[in-house]
Amino acid sequence: MNELRIALIGLGAVGRAWVRLLMERADRIQGLYGTRLIVTGVFTARHGAAIDPKGLDLPGVLRAYEAGDLTGLGIQPIPTDGRAFVEVCPADVLVELSVLNPQTGQPALDYVRQALQRGLHVVTANKGPIALAYRELRALARAQNRWLLFEASVMDGIPIFSMVRWGLPAAEIRGFYGILNSTTNLVLTLMEQGTSMEEAIRQAQAIGIAEADPSHDIDGWDAAVKVCILANVWMDANLRPTDVDRTGIRGVSPRDLRAALERGHRVKLVCRAQRQLDGTLQASVRPEEVPLSDPLAQTKETEAFLCIESDSIAPLALVERARATPVHTAYGVLADVLQIARLPHPVV
Amino acid sequence: MNELRIALIGLGAVGRAWVRLLMERADRIQGLYGTRLIVTGVFTARHGAAIDPKGLDLPGVLRAYEAGDLTGLGIQPIPTDGRAFVEVCPADVLVELSVLNPQTGQPALDYVRQALQRGLHVVTANKGPIALAYRELRALARAQNRWLLFEASVMDGIPIFSMVRWGLPAAEIRGFYGILNSTTNLVLTLMEQGTSMEEAIRQAQAIGIAEADPSHDIDGWDAAVKVCILANVWMDANLRPTDVDRTGIRGVSPRDLRAALERGHRVKLVCRAQRQLDGTLQASVRPEEVPLSDPLAQTKETEAFLCIESDSIAPLALVERARATPVHTAYGVLADVLQIARLPHPVV
Repeated sequence: MNELRIALIGLGAVGRAWVRLLMERADRIQGLYGTRLIVTGVFTARHGAAIDPKGLDLPGVLRAYEAGDLTGLGIQPIPTDGRAFVEVCPADVLVELSVLNPQTGQPALDYVRQALQRGLHVVTANKGPIALAYRELRALARAQNRWLLFEASVMDGIPIFSMVRWGLPAAEIRGFYGILNSTTNLVLTLMEQGTSMEEAIRQAQAIGIAEADPSHDIDGWDAAVKVCILANVWMDANLRPTDVDRTGIRGVSPRDLRAALERGHRVKLVCRAQRQLDGTLQASVRPEEVPLSDPLAQTKETEAFLCIESDSIAPLALVERARATPVHTAYGVLADVLQIARLPHPVV
Repeated sequence: MNELRIALIGLGAVGRAWVRLLMERADRIQGLYGTRLIVTGVFTARHGAAIDPKGLDLPGVLRAYEAGDLTGLGIQPIPTDGRAFVEVCPADVLVELSVLNPQTGQPALDYVRQALQRGLHVVTANKGPIALAYRELRALARAQNRWLLFEASVMDGIPIFSMVRWGLPAAEIRGFYGILNSTTNLVLTLMEQGTSMEEAIRQAQAIGIAEADPSHDIDGWDAAVKVCILANVWMDANLRPTDVDRTGIRGVSPRDLRAALERGHRVKLVCRAQRQLDGTLQASVRPEEVPLSDPLAQTKETEAFLCIESDSIAPLALVERARATPVHTAYGVLADVLQIARLPHPVV
């Protein structure tokens, strides 16, 4: 039985769901892959941290989190800073689920960089490091012969990166388009039914998908970040979110939506990237009027849609047909960890 | 530079497209994966065969095929029987693209079985062996520590098997549904526009997707075969095509289609498999009336659709958004070969 030692940063909704998933699936994972996953350390920003080289008791971690402080669980001195935690926690993999500043990508970017430098594999659900520093991190991971995986960063665990990595070898991705931000898609769906934008945002906040400050979604930044990730990873681009031709949905009114409907169209916040004939890449996020028969128009509420165009297969569309939950995102993180368990040496 | 030696059976439209793809992508493949793919033998039913342990010249293979006989290319005595070819061709991988008898799965099943027994990896685009004998072949491949891959057998190279293998580890597939037969889907689309079934079948034959005897498609056998493959591979079922509750589209008239449309519905030949509460698996292929808003109803002409339900992520739908060509199927075969090049030792 192999062991894979995991240092975990972050016990938010996704982090706790991931710990529960690990508990529920431990036997299945051992049976299938002959690997025991042990969590040797947990670091949180506001609930303390703990390290035990032999593996922390996971139900105990969840109970201590509920009680407010993990510190008592550890058997070695606890770093009070995430960077020090990454440096000292005995581990093979860093699972990085910290709360992100979307502008700077910090502190996730520092954690990821430092873990790779230390020779750990890295799995992150954070978009920031991949959108802002993918080239640097990819080079670092290759130099260290370690995995850098981020399946849960776009489309919540729908295995788009695994699919392209394993299913489209030696293929050239020529472009993609889709609907990748669930808050704006829900807001547009509600506005079409007559709700005001303010009220629609309040409803998105009520079900937990929109932040208190919704501008990151409404102004198209979250979608632009996702366009960067997909273009940088699949099309060898070097885009920053500010490079994306970006218009959010602030200028869209319920009247615009009804007028579009009368023309047999629907307004959607569409993400696009396309290799041009001169080799450059054009990337955009903007409201587009699409015909009702188009799959983009049929992507409702919090669903997501992505169509990938390559030189190898027919255009391939993926649809996330229900609202994703933290459990789905946590599963995407687990899938990455299991790829490392199955392939401890990275494969190009 | 590693070499991967390939024995190829079949030079139909997919086989020739695969040879051309290999020629076009050779440099890219060597650059990416450090592997040179060489074809050490080709066997065809009606155009002879050739073996050269050092690798056949691929443009020469295509020219000899056009001229009607491969025999002159080889440097060792040519087996006149496919089974003897599998036995003697020096190779690491059998790429099996023979013309199939859909009832018996032969001769593909014999070729696959024999190649695995001999210790070759096997890549096949044929549905028969996987639908009829997956358990036996999987056990054989495991015992020999060899890959048995068949990405192109369902959805023409859309990487559904890769996606599930790598993207859904330790997940339980609870069911799937979709539209997997392009002939019947095109026929239903045309009939809805007023074409008779006979004329619609003729049009499907004219574009090369329906056989001279269309009953394999029209009676739902091809769809049932695909349901078996997906259920056997993903849900550990042991279904034969005759186990599927199967109704084809013979009983569907243009009038039925128009009447459904008037009710806001469309008739589609829908494939389904679903784990029941008692643990059994229910599998069906039959015409169903689905609401126009349903993605099944929006799958037009020769498009394909598949939705996968699991215990791990939100329902995941894949859409093949254009008619697949032999080049797409050939690419699916190449993707499998490249997985073997990247991972010479099978990974669970």
